[in-house]
Amino acid sequence: LIGGSVGLAARERAGATVRGYDLDPAARAQALELGVVDVAAGSLEEALDDARVAVVAVPVAPLPAVVAEVLSAAGPDCAVTDVGSTKRGVVAACSDERFVGGHPLAGAETAGVAHARGDLFEGATWYLTPGPASGGLFFERLHRLIGALGAQPVAIDAERHDRMMASVSHLPHVLANVLVAQAAGAVEGAEEGLPATGPSFRDATRVAGASNAIWTDIYLSNRDALIERIDDAMARLGSARELLASGDRAAIDAWNDAAAADRHRLLDAGLVGGATHELRVSVPNRPGVVAQIALELGRAGINITDMALYPAADNSSGVIALWLQGDDAVRRVEAIAEGLGFPVARA
Amino acid sequence: LIGGSVGLAARERAGATVRGYDLDPAARAQALELGVVDVAAGSLEEALDDARVAVVAVPVAPLPAVVAEVLSAAGPDCAVTDVGSTKRGVVAACSDERFVGGHPLAGAETAGVAHARGDLFEGATWYLTPGPASGGLFFERLHRLIGALGAQPVAIDAERHDRMMASVSHLPHVLANVLVAQAAGAVEGAEEGLPATGPSFRDATRVAGASNAIWTDIYLSNRDALIERIDDAMARLGSARELLASGDRAAIDAWNDAAAADRHRLLDAGLVGGATHELRVSVPNRPGVVAQIALELGRAGINITDMALYPAADNSSGVIALWLQGDDAVRRVEAIAEGLGFPVARA
Repeated sequence: LIGGSVGLAARERAGATVRGYDLDPAARAQALELGVVDVAAGSLEEALDDARVAVVAVPVAPLPAVVAEVLSAAGPDCAVTDVGSTKRGVVAACSDERFVGGHPLAGAETAGVAHARGDLFEGATWYLTPGPASGGLFFERLHRLIGALGAQPVAIDAERHDRMMASVSHLPHVLANVLVAQAAGAVEGAEEGLPATGPSFRDATRVAGASNAIWTDIYLSNRDALIERIDDAMARLGSARELLASGDRAAIDAWNDAAAADRHRLLDAGLVGGATHELRVSVPNRPGVVAQIALELGRAGINITDMALYPAADNSSGVIALWLQGDDAVRRVEAIAEGLGFPVARA
Repeated sequence: LIGGSVGLAARERAGATVRGYDLDPAARAQALELGVVDVAAGSLEEALDDARVAVVAVPVAPLPAVVAEVLSAAGPDCAVTDVGSTKRGVVAACSDERFVGGHPLAGAETAGVAHARGDLFEGATWYLTPGPASGGLFFERLHRLIGALGAQPVAIDAERHDRMMASVSHLPHVLANVLVAQAAGAVEGAEEGLPATGPSFRDATRVAGASNAIWTDIYLSNRDALIERIDDAMARLGSARELLASGDRAAIDAWNDAAAADRHRLLDAGLVGGATHELRVSVPNRPGVVAQIALELGRAGINITDMALYPAADNSSGVIALWLQGDDAVRRVEAIAEGLGFPVARA
């Protein structure tokens, strides 16, 4: 689904020529037939020949090995990224300047190239997780491509990414499994039939029993963070239980009001608005400087609408142009860049 | 939302004349303006004058008192039902042959008549919870009206309804509150900003912090059943935690496969299919017999597409005509009717 949708979006929206490779010849033929790729390559080498960007879309467990294979077959100017749902493993394993980890927050309970859609990433957050070795030019190229696919690129470090995903993705999947097991099995004896379910239940359990081929890897690769989030959820459920047992109407109102406020804060955090401004930040031309700025802005919740790098002729320094939405974002970026010791100017 | 949508659906789909009453004059004027009612009545008595059916759409806490008021103002031939989300309280409080409890599994996070839609109930399960006193003719009339609104009426006893709803509705609401509280507050320090959320999180938390005016009543009126379901969910989360801690890939696969199977069983249970057949069941004309059959069929998971009552001239016995979908449903209804001692024939 994700690899195929990257292919469609890159062809339809970014005007790219897309070559695809899959171990399975039938999947290659299907991708070609569906227009997901321009060329179904017969080998990894053929797919990567002279490529500017390579996107690795495989389950999390084989990811480090496949990324290493792709880096070894790709040329010196090919940016390589992946779309895995956990990031610590692959980022720790790949210290190549051409590699930047990635994770689009998009998808569905449907897997397989047959479900690929060119608009899958429209408006979605797409995390980039640069490591210490990731090169600024490669980061910038991936950032621009992701924007062209319709997504909002956001830089984040792999550790924080995995902790956040445990809370906003992996725990909801675990809870979906718990809900369907309880509803199907334990409430009623089998002779009484299954309960009818309404919209709130169907929404909460859409991802129950999501593809093993993807999800067992995710659970295993992030289990320390996920166990911590399960413990937290159990503690919160225990508090809700005590609240109900108390029968305290005002306290239940307050608990529910707080949830409504939290939900709106989370929804608002995903929105961008306001006019676009350009800032130019002068930086020394050393490894990791682009990633450092992008991570600082990501941590502050600032979305970079677009970015470009202008290295000086002698390569000793350069300028990063950043396009931002809203006056508030501009002021905050100025403060952050100055805090890092980099001169900044409004364009 | 629910009362307004009943009005729209009854006018658009059942060709009914709808009179509405609300304590708030502004709500009455808005309902008239939106075409939700033909007449915005100035009093309960005016709304109920010569009415065939009355639908009470108020929060759960005032429900027994309002239903009693409606029964006292309504004529001897007016069927009265409600749309409350928990049923034990109102059913225990109202032992009038004209009253049958009801609960449509439809709605959204939006409240208020401005969101009313004539197609809100299309394809939805609509529970009817007759008590021992509920009369067969009143039950039949409500059953037909609900079908005409586009919903699938299913009979169920109030006790079982409330236990099932604790699992498939109230617990998902509690878990949604837990998820947003965790994501908004505990994962990251405030200085790090809020996490971006993907589709699975947004689906699971759509009902977080749902309207206090409705939900605090629901939680309080069903707290014994809900506390039991929270305890069960905590035990299941504890098991999932142990499974993750074990790192046992095959066991995680099996757990996830079971969730996928449970989800599909729950989805399939909501589907109907096959040709429509008519069965005729001969019954003694005594109170509760229609409710008894409807409850038995509901318990067996059999959907009644339509039903009609044909009393004998001397009122000592009668025939219930049932329309069913699928050969399997026909055979099961035959077996159940014969088990109850009622002769049954295919029409």
